[in-house]
Amino acid sequence: MRTMQISEFQEMMRRLYFTRDSARGVDGTFNWLVDEVTELGEELKGSDHLATEKEFADVIAWLASLANIMGIDLEKAALAKYPKKCPKCQSSPCQCTF
Amino acid sequence: MRTMQISEFQEMMRRLYFTRDSARGVDGTFNWLVDEVTELGEELKGSDHLATEKEFADVIAWLASLANIMGIDLEKAALAKYPKKCPKCQSSPCQCTF
Repeated sequence: MRTMQISEFQEMMRRLYFTRDSARGVDGTFNWLVDEVTELGEELKGSDHLATEKEFADVIAWLASLANIMGIDLEKAALAKYPKKCPKCQSSPCQCTF
Repeated sequence: MRTMQISEFQEMMRRLYFTRDSARGVDGTFNWLVDEVTELGEELKGSDHLATEKEFADVIAWLASLANIMGIDLEKAALAKYPKKCPKCQSSPCQCTF
């Protein structure tokens, strides 16, 4: 089975799309991300599992593209905020009472 | 340096939040994802790099939570659609002419 680190996925997106992503810029790329999230929301209402998987793929892909043009390491950011415990209650599983 | 596969991150989110995520359900969790994307968009207008990193972390975290309650493997979905080449033109880097 193929596996991939978050950072490897982001680097792959850089190789594939960075020239185009950087030319489009932050605002345009963020708008694409929003569109992909909207498309994901539409698929969630249906029953096409494969189409839903593809929309999840597109959201993480556009998030990685946006991180690339912002100079942000998505894996580092994710692990800094979620270091195997809830950032609010510091527990795993989360014990927040709200 | 810590590293993490996409699937490991999703599994960590499952350990932390699955009970709460599944109780909230698909619609509520999708709405949280949308809110986090909106917050990311607000941070992108500013200059607080650390705050922006945290918003990227929240978006991938809520995307993973949503994938968990949908029974979707985010890593498998991402690699199925983006197998180290552009899904449209089949090239790396992307050579699409649109």
